[in-house]
Amino acid sequence: MDVPSGYRIALDVMGGDHAPLAILEGAREALTAHPELFLHLVGDEKRMTPILKQMGMTKQLLDRTHIVHSATVVTMEDRATIILKEKKDASIRLAAQLVRDGQADGLVSMGHTGAAMVASMKEMGVLPGVDRPCLASVMPNMTGRPTVLLDVGANVGCRPENIAQFAVMGSVYAEEVLGLDRPRVGVLSVGEEDGKGSATTKEAAQALRDVDLNFLGNAEGRDIWNGKFDVIACDGFVGNAILKSSEALAEGLISGLTAAFMDSWYTKLGGILALPALRRFKAKLDYAEYGGAPLLGVKGITIIGHGRSNARAVKNAIRAAFTASQHRVNEHIQRSLARILAQASSGPS
Amino acid sequence: MDVPSGYRIALDVMGGDHAPLAILEGAREALTAHPELFLHLVGDEKRMTPILKQMGMTKQLLDRTHIVHSATVVTMEDRATIILKEKKDASIRLAAQLVRDGQADGLVSMGHTGAAMVASMKEMGVLPGVDRPCLASVMPNMTGRPTVLLDVGANVGCRPENIAQFAVMGSVYAEEVLGLDRPRVGVLSVGEEDGKGSATTKEAAQALRDVDLNFLGNAEGRDIWNGKFDVIACDGFVGNAILKSSEALAEGLISGLTAAFMDSWYTKLGGILALPALRRFKAKLDYAEYGGAPLLGVKGITIIGHGRSNARAVKNAIRAAFTASQHRVNEHIQRSLARILAQASSGPS
Repeated sequence: MDVPSGYRIALDVMGGDHAPLAILEGAREALTAHPELFLHLVGDEKRMTPILKQMGMTKQLLDRTHIVHSATVVTMEDRATIILKEKKDASIRLAAQLVRDGQADGLVSMGHTGAAMVASMKEMGVLPGVDRPCLASVMPNMTGRPTVLLDVGANVGCRPENIAQFAVMGSVYAEEVLGLDRPRVGVLSVGEEDGKGSATTKEAAQALRDVDLNFLGNAEGRDIWNGKFDVIACDGFVGNAILKSSEALAEGLISGLTAAFMDSWYTKLGGILALPALRRFKAKLDYAEYGGAPLLGVKGITIIGHGRSNARAVKNAIRAAFTASQHRVNEHIQRSLARILAQASSGPS
Repeated sequence: MDVPSGYRIALDVMGGDHAPLAILEGAREALTAHPELFLHLVGDEKRMTPILKQMGMTKQLLDRTHIVHSATVVTMEDRATIILKEKKDASIRLAAQLVRDGQADGLVSMGHTGAAMVASMKEMGVLPGVDRPCLASVMPNMTGRPTVLLDVGANVGCRPENIAQFAVMGSVYAEEVLGLDRPRVGVLSVGEEDGKGSATTKEAAQALRDVDLNFLGNAEGRDIWNGKFDVIACDGFVGNAILKSSEALAEGLISGLTAAFMDSWYTKLGGILALPALRRFKAKLDYAEYGGAPLLGVKGITIIGHGRSNARAVKNAIRAAFTASQHRVNEHIQRSLARILAQASSGPS
């Protein structure tokens, strides 16, 4: 069949807490919603086939899929680099190879974040000027606009140049994909004053002051939510801890509040009347809406979703993958990095 | 006058966004609420005296205060160590000296966190077995119990032994002050599996496995809120970013939700009926309720509050200071550290 360019996605069916079932359900939802979509289903054929049958996938939908067999799964206990030697034929690695070989325009995985990063770097390679790719999370801030926090992935122990590159990639992503004009960029630190922070954050901030970027300086934890910055760059350890903490806090607040409404008959009535507003608000914060985080800096599209992704999150991650492909994010990142690297080498330092 | 032991607190009147007014108002509230309390008001006498007059402090309350003059203020732009050479007579340093000299049982400051740490370490000294004191934040988790997150202060770039010591001090604090039985302790990392994390967190976790502590291993960002851990130790950079991010997220969620209630007449009615529940819930999360974070590991009591503390936060921070003094937290920390250090040197490593 003829698949429009940019719509061929390799889906790692074996990754995620609810794999393969939730992943395949998400695949069906995505195929149903997007008639242009073509999916490489990468995983254990023996496990996938009966599920696909049980799900009652129509022949029309199945025609837009292609099973790539891999019985090897990366577990959460594995090191990220396990796919380089012991688990060379893991589903995540085969999915990355499909992108490398031009058979897929992007990959989606809900599995081991580190393994997805290593597979993408190994098979697709990294863009010129990028030392380490990073995972970008789009956080819905209180002004209704998004804030891009990156790295939220597995780059533990970043050097200043890594964080500076994250900032540049985040700025391009915010501008090209999220449509923000001259994104306001910051480096996450422990105080807004220039003197505050670690040696690493201070040096990263210094490097960013010298290039053509709308760089505002240090951001603090609160700036992720108040809309003062569009892009905040940090070490992956910090970003990951903040991301996981924020998800749990938001979920806990909403359920705590719902429980508080049950206090008395009138707050209960109030709660019931306010329920539609509560639900809409909840949906805004739902990670499943965003589907997954883009891995920026690799020569290809990789979207990494939450381990506990449900079918809807999988569907939305697939949409994120073909959208990124169509926005040609990587070309923009490459161009911006090249321009900035040229500036940095010719300008005053 | 006769002041009961443990109730003499040195208050840094010059520190904080709303100093000296909010600090003095908090002092008055605390003096009114706690008849045993005696306060050293450390700050610029020329600025304090007219405010105290304007506030109409009664003679009875004034009798339980003592003004210690210092016109030197540490600003947020200053380095923390400025009090060692240039600003030797800063209010925060004089306050720490009152504790050192036994004239005060503890100090409270809403000013520069780093300066308060340096002043406390310099004047009071650190407990044996402690390399770096740390700031502990008591977070209200979703089970209604507290989680102690530490360090949330200014220890940027911690070594494994620092984080291990934070864990021990946090455990003692949770047990002695918060009354938790055998507190469940974790090291913050990017995954719950032992192999996840930085070299620093892995080494800290290893050290904690060898000692008599209810150590559960790696905690993740979400564990700050889900009640799986009572104490979570981390580098001060990470803890600070999480603390500030969480405060802003919680505030933003509550106001976003309130705004969402205004969507239609029935969600609006619902919102109004549910308002008491919303208010009670908000109060639970209000930083002003907690007043301030204890600095653990110094030979004395230091409570550091939020820069934007209002009078109520100041009052509660003062209460936290004399409560900590009465619980003899430091003796417990010292004993636990000594026991654990002895274990570590005699036991298998």
